[in-house]
Amino acid sequence: MLKQALLGVLCAAVVLSIGILIGHFGISKSSSSEPSWMKDVVKDVDENLIKQFLSEVKTSELEQNLRELTKIPHMATSPGDEQTVQFMLKRWKDPSSGLDDAWRQEYAVYLSFPDPEKPNKVTVVDPSDAELYTVREKEKPYYDDQRHPDVVQPYAAYAPAGHPRGKLVYAHQGKAADYELLNKTVDLRGTIAITRYGGAGRAAKAINGAPYGVVGVLVYTDPLDINDGVMSDTSETYPHSWYLPPSGVERGSYSIPFGDMLTPYLAAKDDTYRIPRENVTEIPPIPVQPIGFEDAYKLICELGGDAAPSDWQGGFNCTYNNGGPGFNTDSVFNNSDVKLDIYNHETVKNSSNVMGIIRGSVEPDRYVIYGNHRDSWVHGAIDPSSGTSVMLEITRVLGSMVKQGKWRPRRSIIFGSWGAEEFGLIGSAEYTEDYFTKLSERTVSYINVDIATFANATLRASGVPSVQNVIFQASQQVSAPGHDSLSVYDNWIKYSNRTSPTHGLIPRMGYLTGAGSDYAAFVHYLGIASMDISYTYDRTKTNARIYPAYHTAYDTFDYASKYIDPGFVSHQAVARTAGNILIRLADSLLLPLNCTDYAESLEDYLKEAVTLYEAQLQTKGISMEPLKWAVANFRREAKNLEELIRSSHLANDTPLKARRINDQLMLLDRAFLNPYAFPDQYGFRHVIWASSSAGKPTFPGLADAFARVQSSGEPRDWEKVHYHLSVLSQAIDGAASMLAEVI
Amino acid sequence: MLKQALLGVLCAAVVLSIGILIGHFGISKSSSSEPSWMKDVVKDVDENLIKQFLSEVKTSELEQNLRELTKIPHMATSPGDEQTVQFMLKRWKDPSSGLDDAWRQEYAVYLSFPDPEKPNKVTVVDPSDAELYTVREKEKPYYDDQRHPDVVQPYAAYAPAGHPRGKLVYAHQGKAADYELLNKTVDLRGTIAITRYGGAGRAAKAINGAPYGVVGVLVYTDPLDINDGVMSDTSETYPHSWYLPPSGVERGSYSIPFGDMLTPYLAAKDDTYRIPRENVTEIPPIPVQPIGFEDAYKLICELGGDAAPSDWQGGFNCTYNNGGPGFNTDSVFNNSDVKLDIYNHETVKNSSNVMGIIRGSVEPDRYVIYGNHRDSWVHGAIDPSSGTSVMLEITRVLGSMVKQGKWRPRRSIIFGSWGAEEFGLIGSAEYTEDYFTKLSERTVSYINVDIATFANATLRASGVPSVQNVIFQASQQVSAPGHDSLSVYDNWIKYSNRTSPTHGLIPRMGYLTGAGSDYAAFVHYLGIASMDISYTYDRTKTNARIYPAYHTAYDTFDYASKYIDPGFVSHQAVARTAGNILIRLADSLLLPLNCTDYAESLEDYLKEAVTLYEAQLQTKGISMEPLKWAVANFRREAKNLEELIRSSHLANDTPLKARRINDQLMLLDRAFLNPYAFPDQYGFRHVIWASSSAGKPTFPGLADAFARVQSSGEPRDWEKVHYHLSVLSQAIDGAASMLAEVI
Repeated sequence: MLKQALLGVLCAAVVLSIGILIGHFGISKSSSSEPSWMKDVVKDVDENLIKQFLSEVKTSELEQNLRELTKIPHMATSPGDEQTVQFMLKRWKDPSSGLDDAWRQEYAVYLSFPDPEKPNKVTVVDPSDAELYTVREKEKPYYDDQRHPDVVQPYAAYAPAGHPRGKLVYAHQGKAADYELLNKTVDLRGTIAITRYGGAGRAAKAINGAPYGVVGVLVYTDPLDINDGVMSDTSETYPHSWYLPPSGVERGSYSIPFGDMLTPYLAAKDDTYRIPRENVTEIPPIPVQPIGFEDAYKLICELGGDAAPSDWQGGFNCTYNNGGPGFNTDSVFNNSDVKLDIYNHETVKNSSNVMGIIRGSVEPDRYVIYGNHRDSWVHGAIDPSSGTSVMLEITRVLGSMVKQGKWRPRRSIIFGSWGAEEFGLIGSAEYTEDYFTKLSERTVSYINVDIATFANATLRASGVPSVQNVIFQASQQVSAPGHDSLSVYDNWIKYSNRTSPTHGLIPRMGYLTGAGSDYAAFVHYLGIASMDISYTYDRTKTNARIYPAYHTAYDTFDYASKYIDPGFVSHQAVARTAGNILIRLADSLLLPLNCTDYAESLEDYLKEAVTLYEAQLQTKGISMEPLKWAVANFRREAKNLEELIRSSHLANDTPLKARRINDQLMLLDRAFLNPYAFPDQYGFRHVIWASSSAGKPTFPGLADAFARVQSSGEPRDWEKVHYHLSVLSQAIDGAASMLAEVI
Repeated sequence: MLKQALLGVLCAAVVLSIGILIGHFGISKSSSSEPSWMKDVVKDVDENLIKQFLSEVKTSELEQNLRELTKIPHMATSPGDEQTVQFMLKRWKDPSSGLDDAWRQEYAVYLSFPDPEKPNKVTVVDPSDAELYTVREKEKPYYDDQRHPDVVQPYAAYAPAGHPRGKLVYAHQGKAADYELLNKTVDLRGTIAITRYGGAGRAAKAINGAPYGVVGVLVYTDPLDINDGVMSDTSETYPHSWYLPPSGVERGSYSIPFGDMLTPYLAAKDDTYRIPRENVTEIPPIPVQPIGFEDAYKLICELGGDAAPSDWQGGFNCTYNNGGPGFNTDSVFNNSDVKLDIYNHETVKNSSNVMGIIRGSVEPDRYVIYGNHRDSWVHGAIDPSSGTSVMLEITRVLGSMVKQGKWRPRRSIIFGSWGAEEFGLIGSAEYTEDYFTKLSERTVSYINVDIATFANATLRASGVPSVQNVIFQASQQVSAPGHDSLSVYDNWIKYSNRTSPTHGLIPRMGYLTGAGSDYAAFVHYLGIASMDISYTYDRTKTNARIYPAYHTAYDTFDYASKYIDPGFVSHQAVARTAGNILIRLADSLLLPLNCTDYAESLEDYLKEAVTLYEAQLQTKGISMEPLKWAVANFRREAKNLEELIRSSHLANDTPLKARRINDQLMLLDRAFLNPYAFPDQYGFRHVIWASSSAGKPTFPGLADAFARVQSSGEPRDWEKVHYHLSVLSQAIDGAASMLAEVI
């Protein structure tokens, strides 16, 4: 009995032990001891969600968006602009496919318009003041779009009003070198210069001429530059093709800086201090008017004087002469002047950004910003509505996922529909000035899709080197339009590629070295890892500077859907690629920003700088060693950080480790900012990507300083070269220290 | 049998179930399902550790540190300085009480020294060039300390070499207003001005005089300003008391900007670009020499001309006359000139910071920085060695805890022993320029303890308003020296207090509005929440401008231990308070930075600005409403954030939530930076605390702009007032948006 009892107790003990073991190890205890937030904080990007996103981007929606956006002209602050504001707000507040929140944000900004009551006028007047010829006031209508009363007359925004009159000369592209050359044989004092688009910025064509005494400037688009030589609207140009009709005129902002010009480095609110208007520089000092090549033909082919240099000749079937100054003696215009009557006026008006957000679940204080401007010059089907259509399709698909409770990004997403970009990237620049510190400290990346489809051949992407990787990754997952079995990436590499020491043959990304669209304030002023994405041309098929209807009354839904992207498949490819990038930036546990790719670009720039400058710098006793050490230092720290990332298991580690590494990657570009490096270039602080006039593929401040001393020969200008070397070396060292072991 | 068997199975099942229940609920599974890092990431500051720290801070160690540090003079870059570098490194690398790591970091900086071979000379010379009187070359020795060969001759660093000679005038404190007044009755052209310390910065005394034709400047310390009138060294002054002996001379830097003057906004490395020396401004344009009041007495009491205004009179038993210019006709110096022979020279020399770190365990990428300069003018017992002694005692106690494995802070701690502070805060400024972005992005707070003990009466603390709370908290836990039952806080409130709308009666903190010590680059250039801590005077007992031996050969261990802090109890109180603050900043789960206290200070400043300026601004059509809205906005967002903090259980929430709120608090001051607001004030970017000359307790840029237009009457100067209102409103709005819900 005792034995039996003992056996019973023993059995019970064994069974109890088994029970304890089962209870302890066999049953998951996650609900009680693992905090509820654990799963969320270590979650990585979900590839199935990306697949779902890609499958839900619809050409039909993209087409419908574009149709809505282009119903009427929507120049900044016009009634049509207000209509697009309302349209964006309605879409982003939609209860089933909208965002978490959306609102309008206004800035009071300095704009320039022609006078609808007194249209700008360009005439040829003989010595008795008789008008022999009058340039067309508006573009020729082919459809109702061109007849819309809100089509703004072609004008040069920010060119002053005035009534200059003088003998005509042909000044090619209006570059400084063009006027210098022309001035050697022609007395430019009191003349009107006709110039063509390209070569120099819009404002520069007037700013460069004024010192020689030029009193007014005409600007036109030469058929050679835009139409592959095609000129006739009876069969060749739009509406028969994508080419520019003879009366088409490129409008544009004739100002150099970006952002509101009256409120530098301050947000343009109602009560903000504004500098006196006479202190606004970097706009034309003399009246300017853009005209079509139909009119330019009449003027240029009547010019007297010597024949212009061969590389100044264009697409017209006549010799481009310099101008006597003035017209040929056997011309009907002999002895006549050209007269400009310009009635532009500047005014401060309220322009709206429309902002929309999706709140982040785990790191709401980290922002991925996606933006495009909303304002156009006329209907703006391609510029910017193709991009706005893409943005709206991305927000529709993502917004629906959020509203259905299927998804919430790890980080917050901010969408910006910027106002008044056409006047100088104003809406986006004011936004960055308004929230400078907040955006600096929290923004992971900025994605810009302005013109989504210049054409339908291939992807084009520009950005800081750290975003190359995520663009590649995303574009590999999207089918190229019209090629079901070819990815956007594989198609891209066929059109534009390079050999990277690290990656081998890869598509060639561009750099964001200028201020071509709203990425400017983000990359140059805030130092945020930015990118710009679009679909573009097959360069073997056209030499057009840009799509021919750019900034004209022909950039319409009809034009876009017939000649740029029939079927909206390129819009779709861009929406899928950009949306994929956006999701990856918002959802990845480890930010998909690659610092060794940055090292590669710095090494390229260094190599070029050494080749171009070192020998001469040595003769001046200026050493490039600190720059070499800095780049080597950056490479070493980038490699170390990448190894740390490779050897880490972030999902098993404290969430503060992922945050720490992500902060290192996110803030890398901030270390390249220097607010004192370019005192003459408003808003440019990024010492690697700032705008440069030297045209060399290397560090901009160094290249410009070197070019300056080469031309001036002033010993003091060598000091600037040395200064920029120090700025660069220390910025790169500072960036390397951001990548180094944090302490 | 069946029944028995069934019973057995039933029993077994029950036992098994019990086992399972025990196994599942009874035994903690933390090791398997709760990640190992969980405990660390939610750990808060440990009050027991603070108690232990407080108990281990020893007066004997503080005394011994000071004795070691003051053995020989250690002016920047001197052999004595190198000796202190070695001493710091030895202590910080000590295997049982040192830090995780320590190293030296050198910058090549622009310094100014007298010539030991040709000492500066000040003489009275008669018309036949006979020397009637020669000013003492070195201070009178009482002990070996003063006889040490490395005691540098008194000089005005950065004042140029030269040999000016002229009639003497008395220009009071050398303020602009002083020269302006004096010039009304005395022709200042070609004169030597004698001025006294106080009222204006050192360099200003020469910069203000030169435009009137003054060719040389003498500077002395009036006994009224430093010695409560006491003058005789036979019984009254040191070595009989803390008062300045008659031959004592305050040395100092006669430069205005901080940081190395040849490398503005760049770290002064060997190859860094240096501006031409002739471009260095804001230093005296004419020779200057500081002298003792023993010599000043001889000169001033012989001056001719009218009696100087009553508020220009000083502690000498004679009437201070303006000077004829020159001496009294019945003086032995009648018709004589004063001649300066100044042989100062500038040179670029390597100066060392000594850096030491304790790595953070949870957030190594967050830094608490604690610093003090190491260089002195002579032995520098009080300035700066009292602070260095305190820093070494803090590192000894904390280092021992780290080496014993008892403690590792949540965040990283960086200790900086700065070089060349006396020449213009150079070591700390170069450090912030060298690691600008890294320090901006990661630094939680900067604690400066330079002169730890001006005197032994009460704590003195200055800082941005958000650090008030942690200073109060820490000082409540430390006993006041000599008062076992009274805290440092309760003692402090007796000496200096104010009534806060929120807190009632509290000690009065100062603001960091100038560049008095190494906090300058941290708060003004980087926008880091900074503080400066010391023990100081009972103002009912002395009117001395500063402790009398300041910058003289009498600031020795003997002086400090006898007359400033016998028993080293004030050193101990400062070490305990500052160390407590440091531990709280490094270890608290939620950063102890308080944003509603910031709101209170902004409201004070606003109230003052409205009182002083609003009526006149209204007459100019400039509205103060945007500033009022901004301050109200800041208050609202600060209150909301504080409520969010109160309602949060950070220890139970994702560690990313604490990090998010901490980032909001840490980065608050960054939003107040504007690199364009003060183009004429090097390194000043913080629009709330920048240096101001208007002397009003309100926003500095606004106050200075208003003062300027009041004096100039220029309509254009009203624009600057409006500009600064916009800068301020937008900075405060930007700061409010940092506190607002993150998205």
